[in-house]
Amino acid sequence: MKRLLPICRGLRALSQPQAGRRAGVVGSQCGFCGTASGTKPQPGFGLLFDIDGVLVRGRMPIPAAKKAFQKLVNSQGQFVVPVVFVTNAGNCLRQTKADQLAHILGVPISQDQVIMSHSPLRMFKKYHERCVLVSGQGPVLDIAKHLGFEKVVSIDMLRESFPLLDMVDHNRRPKLPSITVGNLPKVEAVILFGEPVRWETNLQLIMDVLLTNGNLTGAHQIQTQPHLPLLACNMDLLWMAEAQSPRFGHGTFLVCLENIYKKITGQEMKYEALMGKPSEMTYHFAEYLIRSQAEERQWKLPITSLYAIGDNLMTDIYGANLYNRYLEKRASGKNLKAVTKMMAATGSTGSAATVPQEEVEMTDGAWESELASPSATSCCSVLVCTGVYKPSGEVPSSAKRCVRETTVFHGHRDFSFDPVLVEPGHIVHDVADAVELIFQKEKFVPQ
Amino acid sequence: MKRLLPICRGLRALSQPQAGRRAGVVGSQCGFCGTASGTKPQPGFGLLFDIDGVLVRGRMPIPAAKKAFQKLVNSQGQFVVPVVFVTNAGNCLRQTKADQLAHILGVPISQDQVIMSHSPLRMFKKYHERCVLVSGQGPVLDIAKHLGFEKVVSIDMLRESFPLLDMVDHNRRPKLPSITVGNLPKVEAVILFGEPVRWETNLQLIMDVLLTNGNLTGAHQIQTQPHLPLLACNMDLLWMAEAQSPRFGHGTFLVCLENIYKKITGQEMKYEALMGKPSEMTYHFAEYLIRSQAEERQWKLPITSLYAIGDNLMTDIYGANLYNRYLEKRASGKNLKAVTKMMAATGSTGSAATVPQEEVEMTDGAWESELASPSATSCCSVLVCTGVYKPSGEVPSSAKRCVRETTVFHGHRDFSFDPVLVEPGHIVHDVADAVELIFQKEKFVPQ
Repeated sequence: MKRLLPICRGLRALSQPQAGRRAGVVGSQCGFCGTASGTKPQPGFGLLFDIDGVLVRGRMPIPAAKKAFQKLVNSQGQFVVPVVFVTNAGNCLRQTKADQLAHILGVPISQDQVIMSHSPLRMFKKYHERCVLVSGQGPVLDIAKHLGFEKVVSIDMLRESFPLLDMVDHNRRPKLPSITVGNLPKVEAVILFGEPVRWETNLQLIMDVLLTNGNLTGAHQIQTQPHLPLLACNMDLLWMAEAQSPRFGHGTFLVCLENIYKKITGQEMKYEALMGKPSEMTYHFAEYLIRSQAEERQWKLPITSLYAIGDNLMTDIYGANLYNRYLEKRASGKNLKAVTKMMAATGSTGSAATVPQEEVEMTDGAWESELASPSATSCCSVLVCTGVYKPSGEVPSSAKRCVRETTVFHGHRDFSFDPVLVEPGHIVHDVADAVELIFQKEKFVPQ
Repeated sequence: MKRLLPICRGLRALSQPQAGRRAGVVGSQCGFCGTASGTKPQPGFGLLFDIDGVLVRGRMPIPAAKKAFQKLVNSQGQFVVPVVFVTNAGNCLRQTKADQLAHILGVPISQDQVIMSHSPLRMFKKYHERCVLVSGQGPVLDIAKHLGFEKVVSIDMLRESFPLLDMVDHNRRPKLPSITVGNLPKVEAVILFGEPVRWETNLQLIMDVLLTNGNLTGAHQIQTQPHLPLLACNMDLLWMAEAQSPRFGHGTFLVCLENIYKKITGQEMKYEALMGKPSEMTYHFAEYLIRSQAEERQWKLPITSLYAIGDNLMTDIYGANLYNRYLEKRASGKNLKAVTKMMAATGSTGSAATVPQEEVEMTDGAWESELASPSATSCCSVLVCTGVYKPSGEVPSSAKRCVRETTVFHGHRDFSFDPVLVEPGHIVHDVADAVELIFQKEKFVPQ
C-alpha cells in the first residue's frame, strides 16, 4: 500500500516578495506544492538524494532506484533536472562514490554531483597547516590531502611509533619489549572521518591524544581543558544495509567515544564542528552544486525549490527541514549573528559548519561569498520507507504519526530533538514514488 | 619516598565474641592491627594479590614482586602463608594464568591459587543447559565449557551463520551476495567474559541478539523488555600495562555497550550479574581457597584476617572494603534477606553474585553451604602505587587524601560511589612494602 501525502510545508513562511521570485511557474498558486494547472518546460527545482536506504542497501540496488533514474535522464544520458547525491559516507573519494553510483543506477554520474560528509572540511583552512590525526577506514590519508590538509597522521602511524598504547588485542601487542619511537609531530587536532575498524584501537589512541594534548610521549593529564580540537564527519547512528535491521554507523562510534571520555574524565567531550547531514553546511554545498548544474545547462528558471529524499528521520529529514528553516528565515530577512562564531571556527572569511547545540543562522555575504547566495527558497523533505525508517504497518497516514512512532531520538547528542524538524514534508513508499510525486507537484514534464 | 600507614579499619566493628575467636594470637590487643608484642609461629592471615599493576605491568614484572615473593616461599618452595591471586582478567584458563605467574615470580603456583573474574559462573547452574553467546578473546569456548556451560555459541559462529550483520569493516563484508545460514540454536543468554577484539563486531552482534531476543533471523524489536539475561565478568575500566597511562579494560567495552543500548532503545541495559572485583562473590571464593590452603597445610590457627593488595581504588580497594563490610555485618549478627534474590539469580541453592545497585547481604547457610562459612572476620585493603593509582606527588599522607585525588568515579555504573569504600586501609609504595607491612602487623616470622 502506498500513499502520496501532500504535507508540504516548504513555502508556508515565505513572504510575498520571495514568492514573487518564482516567476517561471505558469499560473501557479503555490509553485512549491504545485497546485497550478500549468506545466514547466524546464526545471525550477533540484533533487538531493540520500544513497543508503534510498538507492541501495549495502551493495544491492533498491529496485525502485533504476526506475526513478530512468525518468531523470534523457536519451542522451543527461539529467533533466539538477541532481546531487548527499551521503554521510566518508570513507572514500567523491570520484569513487560517483563511479559506484553510475554502475548501480546505469546513468553517468560526475563527482561534482556527490557531496560526502567530509566535504565541508575544505573550508576549515585554519587546520590545513596543523598536524591532524585522522580516524576512519579506506583512503583517509588521501581524502585528508584532497581536502587541503598538509600534515596528516593516521592511527596506524601512531600505533607504530607508540607500540605500548594499543593493548586490547593480545595478538597485536608487541612481541618483544618495545620502546616508543616517537618520531611523529605533535598532533594538533583530531578529525573523525567515519567509522573505523578495530574500534578499541581508535578509541584508545584518540583518548590518548586528547588526554595528552597531542603529546603521546607524556602521561595523561585529565585536568587539561579544553581538549584538542575535534572535528567529526557523519553522525549517522544507524544505516540500512542488506540486513533486516539497521547497522551501526559512525554515530555509534561517536557514542562510544563521547561516553568513554565522560567516564574517564568526568567531563563532556566537545566537538569543534560536526559535519554531514543534518548539519546545514552540507545542504549549502548541495544547493550550490545544484545551482551550478542549472547554470551549466543554461536553464533559465532559477532553482527555487529543493527536494531532499531520504530514509532517516534524524539525518535526511531533520537536515532538510533545518535547511528549509534557514531558507525561510533568510527569505523573511532575519539575518544574524552566529556567522561570526562560525567564521571563527573555520578560520576563513567565508565558511560555515554546524556549531553544536546552537541554531545556525548566517548573514548574506559571509560564507555565502564563497558559495554565492542561494537561489533556493525552500527545501522539502521526502521520507521513503525502504531504509532505516520502517512504518509499523502501512506508510503512515500523517507525518505526525510517523514522528510519534519514533519514540527514541537517534540524532546526535548535540542536536536537540525538535519534533517539527523530524516531521517529513512527504512520506512515500520508495524513491520512484518520490520522483513521481515531485514531478506531479512541480507539474514537470521532461522535454 | 615511602610511607607505611597504619590506617587499619578491619576490626573496628567487630563484636566481642568474634574478636574472641582470634585465640591463636599470642598476647594480642588487636590481632588485625598487630599491636601486640608476641609473634605467631603459623599464619592466622591470608593474602589476596591483584596481578596487573601489582606484580606485573603488561608482560614486564614489577621488580618489587620477586622480592615480595621471596619472603612468601620457604626453601622447599612452599608458601609460608596462604596466598591467592585475584585477577579480573578473564581471557584464559586458570592453569594458564598460574603458569604465567610462576614464570614471572619464580615460585611454584597452582591453579587452585588463581581466581579469575569468570570463576563464579560455575555457580550459575540455571544457565548451564541454556544456549549462551560468549564474548571475549582467547579460548572463550573452552573457558565456558570448563565452567559448566553445555551449549556455547561464539561471536564468530554468529558472524558465519549471519553474514549480513557485521558490516562496519568494509573488507570483512561478504564478497558475494550472502544468505543467512541460521543453523544455530536460539541464544538464551549472553556472557561477557572480557574485552574482545574488533569491538564493532561484538557490539553489533550483542545488540542484535538483545534486540531480537536471541533470534537473529528476525528483525529488531526495540520494545521487547526485559532483554535476554546478560552476565558480565570483569568491570575494570582501566588497567596498567607497560605504557605510562592506563589502558582500556573490559569496563570500557561495557561503557560502550551500555551507552549504545541506551541510545538505540532509550532504555537502560540491565545485567543479571556482574562478576569479578569488586563484586563480593569473588572475595568469597578467595576466602574459601585461602581457608582450603591452610587446612591442607594443617596450620592450626584459623585464618581470621585477609589482606587484599591492589592498585585500583575502584576494584581492589572497593571490593576488599565491601567484603570487609560483609564480614563485619556477618560477625555482628546482621544477617539478611538479599540472599533469596541472589539464589534466584544463580538458580542454585548455594551461590551468590553481585546484584547491581544493591548492597549484598547474605544469611549463613545459603551460598555458604557450598563454600562453607568463612573463618575470616576482616578483609583489609592495601593500595600500591605501581599501577593505575598514581599519587600526584609522594604516597599520600592519608587515605582520605588519596580518595580526594580521585575526583572521577571509575567504578562501574551499577556500583555506587561510596567514598568510604574506596578509602584504602593502607597505602604503600609497592608490593614488597605491602608484604613487609603485613608481616609487621601480624608479628609474623616465617619458620
